[in-house]
Amino acid sequence: VTLAGFSSRWVEQPAHVTELDPVALPEGFRAAGVAAGIKPDGLDVALLQSTGPAAASAARFTTSALRGAPVIVSQDARLDALRAVLVSSGNANVADGARGLETARAAQGEAARALGLRPEEVGIAATGVIGRELPRARLLAGVAEAASALGADAEAFCDAIMTTDRGPKRACLEVSLAGGRVRLAGQAKGAGMMAPAFSATLICVVESDVRVDAGTLDRLLDGATRRSFDRITVDGQLSTSDTLFLLAGGASGLSVEPGSEDERRLGAALIALMRTLALEVVRDGEGAHRVGRIVVRGPDRLVEPVARAVADSPLVKTALHGADPNFGRILQAAGQAMAAAGERIDASFPVDLRIEGRPLVRAGVVTDLDPDVLADLEQAVSGVEVDYELDIPGGAAEAELFFSDLGHGYVSLNAEYTT
Amino acid sequence: VTLAGFSSRWVEQPAHVTELDPVALPEGFRAAGVAAGIKPDGLDVALLQSTGPAAASAARFTTSALRGAPVIVSQDARLDALRAVLVSSGNANVADGARGLETARAAQGEAARALGLRPEEVGIAATGVIGRELPRARLLAGVAEAASALGADAEAFCDAIMTTDRGPKRACLEVSLAGGRVRLAGQAKGAGMMAPAFSATLICVVESDVRVDAGTLDRLLDGATRRSFDRITVDGQLSTSDTLFLLAGGASGLSVEPGSEDERRLGAALIALMRTLALEVVRDGEGAHRVGRIVVRGPDRLVEPVARAVADSPLVKTALHGADPNFGRILQAAGQAMAAAGERIDASFPVDLRIEGRPLVRAGVVTDLDPDVLADLEQAVSGVEVDYELDIPGGAAEAELFFSDLGHGYVSLNAEYTT
Repeated sequence: VTLAGFSSRWVEQPAHVTELDPVALPEGFRAAGVAAGIKPDGLDVALLQSTGPAAASAARFTTSALRGAPVIVSQDARLDALRAVLVSSGNANVADGARGLETARAAQGEAARALGLRPEEVGIAATGVIGRELPRARLLAGVAEAASALGADAEAFCDAIMTTDRGPKRACLEVSLAGGRVRLAGQAKGAGMMAPAFSATLICVVESDVRVDAGTLDRLLDGATRRSFDRITVDGQLSTSDTLFLLAGGASGLSVEPGSEDERRLGAALIALMRTLALEVVRDGEGAHRVGRIVVRGPDRLVEPVARAVADSPLVKTALHGADPNFGRILQAAGQAMAAAGERIDASFPVDLRIEGRPLVRAGVVTDLDPDVLADLEQAVSGVEVDYELDIPGGAAEAELFFSDLGHGYVSLNAEYTT
Repeated sequence: VTLAGFSSRWVEQPAHVTELDPVALPEGFRAAGVAAGIKPDGLDVALLQSTGPAAASAARFTTSALRGAPVIVSQDARLDALRAVLVSSGNANVADGARGLETARAAQGEAARALGLRPEEVGIAATGVIGRELPRARLLAGVAEAASALGADAEAFCDAIMTTDRGPKRACLEVSLAGGRVRLAGQAKGAGMMAPAFSATLICVVESDVRVDAGTLDRLLDGATRRSFDRITVDGQLSTSDTLFLLAGGASGLSVEPGSEDERRLGAALIALMRTLALEVVRDGEGAHRVGRIVVRGPDRLVEPVARAVADSPLVKTALHGADPNFGRILQAAGQAMAAAGERIDASFPVDLRIEGRPLVRAGVVTDLDPDVLADLEQAVSGVEVDYELDIPGGAAEAELFFSDLGHGYVSLNAEYTT
């Protein structure tokens, strides 16, 4: 898996945005990744520091009732004024009680000590197996080593946050503002246990060298999350450890004022960046090869549950895997979700369905499928991206969701390994 | 797949019940299965007739907003007084508009004509691909042929209702009542698109030669469905075509009065029969090899969504497939469902989890897992049935759910074939 950049038709590249080397960082940021022995091999402790003159930040976390210790500790930090982020991989530090919380606090404290910060200025995250003790001494040694290895790019940082990912997910954009150019970079990980809910993804860190107040940053993060990580699913499984940090250090010397044209430009760039990273996560869904997009239009109360039901249906996902234009399974999933949402059941089910722009179902009735139509349709769904549109009468709301296919790789990865 | 009978530890055999030849029928019932060319090969039209002196019946159907034409037509029949059931396989007759409804009514009418009944005395069902035209002429010819082939056992009937099933699912019980013995038999099909909701399964027909009023029959069916087909899931996907018929023909000459000890005995036998058939369906879940049972105890508003979340989690199901005692994924699914059900999020998540009776999590904290404990646990989850128990403080409600594993077979079956 290599960076998609703007290769997906589902991500618009704003005119004022250009791509830089994907592992580049904004001015004033340093990062590192080291091997601390939490994983059997490979890098597993990642550290990022903001050294710029300002310190504004925003964050989002899993909405699960079961949260990892790093999430609980981070939620007590100064989330509007973070200066560093520590991420470890291989062990999520979940369900380990007081011992797990102590380990999370010790790691936060060690990072603060090594970087000359206060503990509450360090956001932390962890990803990996649930329900095992995270080896504290190894983690603390890794933090100290990472602090002494901080460098100008995010390459090792990206490697050190991965678990079942096939490859790193990162991008760096240059954004033209009225007074000059700033950078916006992001690093994400995630492949399974992936259905971020309301402003979170497994792990994603976004940095900028712009100077902007934390309230504006929070608002921008909200808008971008709702158009990116909130709109993806691999397996419908909300993680215990979803964490998203956005840091702005101000090292570029350029400021963005609330309500300005520059805020709009920065927001559009943030959406493009986070949509790109979110699509990378779906494309790297465990064992996945293909990405589907379902767009549901109709009554406000129906569009979201119907889109989720289609995107998380194992029947739809296996059909996507097999390049099978199985519209019957889309209708079945929609029928189940509409009933669950309290929709009245009557003999008619007047939905319209298009796959790759081809109208297949009109007012609930499948159009006649002659061999030419079927052959064309089969060709159309054989690409790496497949587009589904479902229209339900009675409203003008819209929900969009990106989802991965379900193939043998997902089964192998999750049946044969403890993740 | 062969009949489980009472081989599962999760089905109790009542003392007043014995097993007969599983393809046997109660007195006064005849059945047939023929090949009509709806499937590429094999039997695909199944007919069953009740010739007894009485005609009491009860039925349940899918609760999806998208219903197949046979469901819509059956729901207009005399569901309390059916004398015949027609099932076809290979094509579910869904989303074909007026043409599909006409085909369903024509098939009902042809069965009635051939058996000398009124159309409203015939319940119909169909299973198979969604969104394709069901060939009407073939179906009608098959109905006529089946009507002339009716015989004393359910063997061909069972074969003719299968789609992706690996084998038939049927049982026949002898039930001792105060005045003598009656029979209770059932035939079911189903392997995928399987998450019956509120009193339905894909296709199941149950017959008895007892004489009992339709109201009592409906009450007994309600209790048995809530302990059998409502408690299973293969892939969380509610079908468009779930249909369950229960017919009592009275040919045994024995009557069951409402509120009597005999009603209790008949009800216990019906639960045993339907639980056996429901477990057969889970065991034959598409590509499945193993069956899990999750029992959740706790607050009323939480037990059902948490049990569903665990049973339908692809992470839990792949772990079951791989004989991996991955309790972390059980906790993750529970945390997601509890949050979705509005549970307050705080640092503690005080659940208890046992797998095969072994306490692994106490008050939200994983017990220390030394190598001996892990080895014992891995041995314990290597059988064909695995038992999970989750206790949530704050209530005494209980939800039980049976689920299949998720393996390569499910992916192959659903990615490589249009079903």
